[in-house]
Amino acid sequence: MKHKKNIDKVKPYKPGKPVEELKREKGLRLVYKMASNELPFSPAYVKKAVLKELKNINRYPESSCFYLRSKLARKLGVKADSLVFGNGSDELITLVLKAFIEKGDEVITAFPSFLVYQIQAQIFGAKVTKVPLKDYSYNLDEIAKKVTPKTKIIFIANPDNPTGTYLSQEKVNRFLKKIPAEVLLFFDEAYFEFAPSDFPRSLKMLKQRKNMIVTRTFSKAYGLAGLRIGYGVTDPEIAGLLNKIREPFNVNRLAQVAAEAALDNKGFVREMVKFTNREKNLIYQALDALGLFYIRSYTNFILVDLGSDTSSLYNYMLSNGVIIRELKGWGLNNLFRITIGTSTQNKKFIKLLIDYVSNEA
Amino acid sequence: MKHKKNIDKVKPYKPGKPVEELKREKGLRLVYKMASNELPFSPAYVKKAVLKELKNINRYPESSCFYLRSKLARKLGVKADSLVFGNGSDELITLVLKAFIEKGDEVITAFPSFLVYQIQAQIFGAKVTKVPLKDYSYNLDEIAKKVTPKTKIIFIANPDNPTGTYLSQEKVNRFLKKIPAEVLLFFDEAYFEFAPSDFPRSLKMLKQRKNMIVTRTFSKAYGLAGLRIGYGVTDPEIAGLLNKIREPFNVNRLAQVAAEAALDNKGFVREMVKFTNREKNLIYQALDALGLFYIRSYTNFILVDLGSDTSSLYNYMLSNGVIIRELKGWGLNNLFRITIGTSTQNKKFIKLLIDYVSNEA
Repeated sequence: MKHKKNIDKVKPYKPGKPVEELKREKGLRLVYKMASNELPFSPAYVKKAVLKELKNINRYPESSCFYLRSKLARKLGVKADSLVFGNGSDELITLVLKAFIEKGDEVITAFPSFLVYQIQAQIFGAKVTKVPLKDYSYNLDEIAKKVTPKTKIIFIANPDNPTGTYLSQEKVNRFLKKIPAEVLLFFDEAYFEFAPSDFPRSLKMLKQRKNMIVTRTFSKAYGLAGLRIGYGVTDPEIAGLLNKIREPFNVNRLAQVAAEAALDNKGFVREMVKFTNREKNLIYQALDALGLFYIRSYTNFILVDLGSDTSSLYNYMLSNGVIIRELKGWGLNNLFRITIGTSTQNKKFIKLLIDYVSNEA
Repeated sequence: MKHKKNIDKVKPYKPGKPVEELKREKGLRLVYKMASNELPFSPAYVKKAVLKELKNINRYPESSCFYLRSKLARKLGVKADSLVFGNGSDELITLVLKAFIEKGDEVITAFPSFLVYQIQAQIFGAKVTKVPLKDYSYNLDEIAKKVTPKTKIIFIANPDNPTGTYLSQEKVNRFLKKIPAEVLLFFDEAYFEFAPSDFPRSLKMLKQRKNMIVTRTFSKAYGLAGLRIGYGVTDPEIAGLLNKIREPFNVNRLAQVAAEAALDNKGFVREMVKFTNREKNLIYQALDALGLFYIRSYTNFILVDLGSDTSSLYNYMLSNGVIIRELKGWGLNNLFRITIGTSTQNKKFIKLLIDYVSNEA
């Protein structure tokens, strides 16, 4: 095979174990997945929209996501032509790389952070500079220092995954001043809805800086991960470029109508965020009681330091039907990530964790 | 913007006009789209599968398409690890380019043929050699002559779009002998289900040649264009490479279960193909009566030569609620493509065409 040799070095992304897979492997009927930062509830609001759209399922989707685009532009207060929709906001990561990266170009991100940035950047032939986190947070000063004339894109997850920390408006403002205007800043705001009040007003920042894109998703707080839809907001010229190079029908019909229904439903996300924060506090309390170190999170998950290799905890959880996320993919053997689930799921997780830690002690 | 300058030369793909768009523009309530080679019926078989899966819509899809993969591998008689699923078979085109193309590499395809090959190849920085059709069919002898040491991929639509012609087993066998083993042959069989009996047994050919991929789709004969799902069959090593570089959740949950339901439904495609061929004959008769030249098609569409610029016919059809496909994107001003619709749609198209041609005469 005469394929691109840089791909051989890439370690592929390993998603959280799917519910179906654990059921198959262990013959379990009840499985709680707390591994992929999904909402634990399936939103009822999509049913009507999806059912109505099934009659058109033989037709290609509108390439422009016309109705969703108008609705979202109104909601965000941005121009319709500044939006790019993707098959999940994942696709926006790939699209900017496809548009900007030529062999030898450089990309900067943090480590540990969302792995897809570095994986896809490597596949596209970029040199990836990974700047270690400082106090579990993006080290923006150090990132700014790493910029070279070859730097094309800086990927910033805000709030971050897997730490759950966030960068405030103040920190981001200082950072923006240091980054040359021609570098594309990619702010991945997948967990935006869970962020606190001093979170950067990134859509406003777009008015000051052309080479910048803010991505968000319907996969997290909106509960539509299975449908695959996310978007980027950016300068209309960059949006035009990304829309030009994407596949013409990248967002399926049902995702488009479900996302519209999501925007129409004002209460759902608010309620989900409230619920998540309440449950997160209960898990914090349990972790405190066990004396385990964790990072205060501004998302729907918590990063926990077990203090020893997580493998046996992971397997203990699995055999009891609970899927958590190890961080071995990041090379972090003592850390695990737990997604906030339903009350029942969170209680079961806490109980299993207590059992495990007591038996270890 | 420091984007890849080769993108500037790319003329983006222009899809058939969407039903919703024409309704908006003309204030029409009834619109017949006969422009994108979609099935004119929404398959009822997906409803149950989709409804059942909605309860999991908050969960990311299984990255491996586990159940669909097993079912399809059994049906095709291929190994499960020789399959790659895509967000439509479009995505397979992008994936092979992403895996194989470095700046300066070459890609060969025919002209006119499916435009996405050349558009995406240009975006990935390949030099595209376009070999003109001969008698409205791929000129395989000429394509073989164009292979150079830099040729990485040859894209072949079989049956072809927009002509509707196909390459027989015999022609393909002769061609295979001429192409160096290291060149990847990409056989796009989007219209496979409509093909005749001497069509190449391409899955068998895969046993003889490693660097080859056969792609098919659920968008055409299966009637699932709106859901976005297609697949490639190839050597397991190449499949592994493509699976490694794709986005982890590229195929949505509802597409996976709908495609499974499609495979379970034995009668649907057979019936659709029979219906399509019957209706195609009625359109042939009308074209014969009008003395219009067309290509005998082995797909669900017909390429017609109007003998003069198609713009006014196109607009006449539009204002009467019928969307046909011009070939201006290919630079072919006198040709149009018509997709076989329902009986009512086909009758309306024929009536409008007769009216138009009589008024022109």
